[in-house]
Amino acid sequence: MDKLEEINKSIRGLDYKLIELTQERLNNLTKPQGSLGRLEELAKQIVGISGKENPELKNKVIFTLAGDHGVTAEGVSVYPKEVTAQMVYNFLRGGAAINVLANHVGARVVVADFGVAEDLKPHPALVIRKINYGTKNMVLGPAMTKDEARKALIAGIELFEGEFIKGADIIGTGEMGIGNTTASSAITASITKRPVEDVTGKGTDIDEQGLLRKIAVVKKALKVNSPNPEDPIDVLAKVGGFEISGLAGIILGAASKRVPVVIDGFISGAAALIAYKIEPKTKDYMIAAHCSMERGHRVILDYIGLKPLLDLNLRLGEGTGAALGMCLAEAGVKILTQMATFKSAGVSEKNKP
Amino acid sequence: MDKLEEINKSIRGLDYKLIELTQERLNNLTKPQGSLGRLEELAKQIVGISGKENPELKNKVIFTLAGDHGVTAEGVSVYPKEVTAQMVYNFLRGGAAINVLANHVGARVVVADFGVAEDLKPHPALVIRKINYGTKNMVLGPAMTKDEARKALIAGIELFEGEFIKGADIIGTGEMGIGNTTASSAITASITKRPVEDVTGKGTDIDEQGLLRKIAVVKKALKVNSPNPEDPIDVLAKVGGFEISGLAGIILGAASKRVPVVIDGFISGAAALIAYKIEPKTKDYMIAAHCSMERGHRVILDYIGLKPLLDLNLRLGEGTGAALGMCLAEAGVKILTQMATFKSAGVSEKNKP
Repeated sequence: MDKLEEINKSIRGLDYKLIELTQERLNNLTKPQGSLGRLEELAKQIVGISGKENPELKNKVIFTLAGDHGVTAEGVSVYPKEVTAQMVYNFLRGGAAINVLANHVGARVVVADFGVAEDLKPHPALVIRKINYGTKNMVLGPAMTKDEARKALIAGIELFEGEFIKGADIIGTGEMGIGNTTASSAITASITKRPVEDVTGKGTDIDEQGLLRKIAVVKKALKVNSPNPEDPIDVLAKVGGFEISGLAGIILGAASKRVPVVIDGFISGAAALIAYKIEPKTKDYMIAAHCSMERGHRVILDYIGLKPLLDLNLRLGEGTGAALGMCLAEAGVKILTQMATFKSAGVSEKNKP
Repeated sequence: MDKLEEINKSIRGLDYKLIELTQERLNNLTKPQGSLGRLEELAKQIVGISGKENPELKNKVIFTLAGDHGVTAEGVSVYPKEVTAQMVYNFLRGGAAINVLANHVGARVVVADFGVAEDLKPHPALVIRKINYGTKNMVLGPAMTKDEARKALIAGIELFEGEFIKGADIIGTGEMGIGNTTASSAITASITKRPVEDVTGKGTDIDEQGLLRKIAVVKKALKVNSPNPEDPIDVLAKVGGFEISGLAGIILGAASKRVPVVIDGFISGAAALIAYKIEPKTKDYMIAAHCSMERGHRVILDYIGLKPLLDLNLRLGEGTGAALGMCLAEAGVKILTQMATFKSAGVSEKNKP
């Protein structure tokens, strides 16, 4: 049994007994029952995930994984592919949106190269887990080998485990990779069996003509490769990306160690879709941060059965939405662990009917 | 000209020139243009409100105003009216949801008695601005005199000004008052002219029969008092509440001093409706934190033309949603002021078509 099978077998359901006790505790806090809506749901979910009666989310980590995509040769993005590497440097210098938002919510960003097309200059904060120098152009054949897909999944699991050992108690997913909305559309169309048009959007902002070209590219990639929707690693290999595989591994790793994972936007959603197909129990460990402007994201959320927390017209990625979602998750946990009860506060309860 | 007229006359429109310059700056940050959606809108709005190129939201204040309602005699709430005072003590001890969430987002809570039905024990953190010992039962006649309504509005303005002098650069509204969803429904029905059924909800959690009784009570209060929807102070006096009047004053005060005000749920929304009817320019200063479960809230948001940031099934009040909204507003401002530009980060811009 290799690392991947071992991890998948170790993923358990939530602690429903503890969730029930948590509901009782929430009902005794000084507020009308259920009046904090989804914050209370988050508290229960995180208790059920962690198995801790009073979880604390002190160590928040966002994984921002970078990878390049051979499919950019088809003109699917308005940005040159060099931007992937340039943005990694921006992450390392702290100038990107994810740095600002992670700081804002008290999270740490782990930046990892899972498949950038060039060798990046070493940096103490850069994790190199490069599987290859970008994927191959998926309209000409598989984006990567199945072996590479598995390697990237395992590298994701290991990256998570490294942070878990250091104490991560909630994580978020994020990514950077010019061309990766195209790969995510292909994954989503393949797994959900929805028409390519329904799951392909404007990415970083292509025009109408560009969108038509992108749709044609996704269709061609699916036709050329015919990924098997019941074999998520086949889908990953044929039309995925290294950063997407890595994120799917991170999600599997988090679920196996009972750590809640906040899913960012469309590309993270595609990774979640893969993790969910590999092991459906991962769903219970996922918190959908937001619903992206990228139209395929809603399809993914509905397919897995996740309800996003935020709807702020975000479409950036990097983990930006996950950072904000993490802040709400923490708010929910604090409600549970820091509020007074009716009894302790001397507040009268509801009149009995 | 009294204080109220003076404040209303001093409310100006936003600085649209600066908003335009801010849009240009946002476009140069290392992200696809507009990809941070509503966070970017928040940044622009707060620049336009404050007139500051690089606003900082260091001093965040949530006003939680308490008041009692004579209409509780009609059995419109499942909680005894003593809970208003008990919850004020809970706020002062830090055990309520608003304390936890304000702490979470780095805001300070200002607790003020605008009309609790009993004399509260003195506490260094309790502001006493009591207009009267609860409103009168509005099904029997006006809830308060017009003079009291004006006094409460001015007390709200002055409460805000006290915090403004101490440096408040963003504020949130919140409240506590058993019976205040009933008053808010009456205000909303009167001003928006929508049927009472459309704007009356279950408050802290009454049953179906209780809801029918509550609807009948609101209808009777409107019939007995016939408030003039074109005279917001008449509406306030006849079917409002002291804490609602105070919050409307706070909103007017904030707008006059160019401070953004994050509006919490349904009761805060009713106060916003009054402020908006007194001076429509206040709208530009409002940030709608969330859409409450209380059905009248959506009616208010649509009437004023506000788009809520969050939809988390909250229905607690106190300022809890405002605290979370404030956190998003701050995120937007930090995006503007802390991110690198394409030039400074050496990241390639979009390909020219």
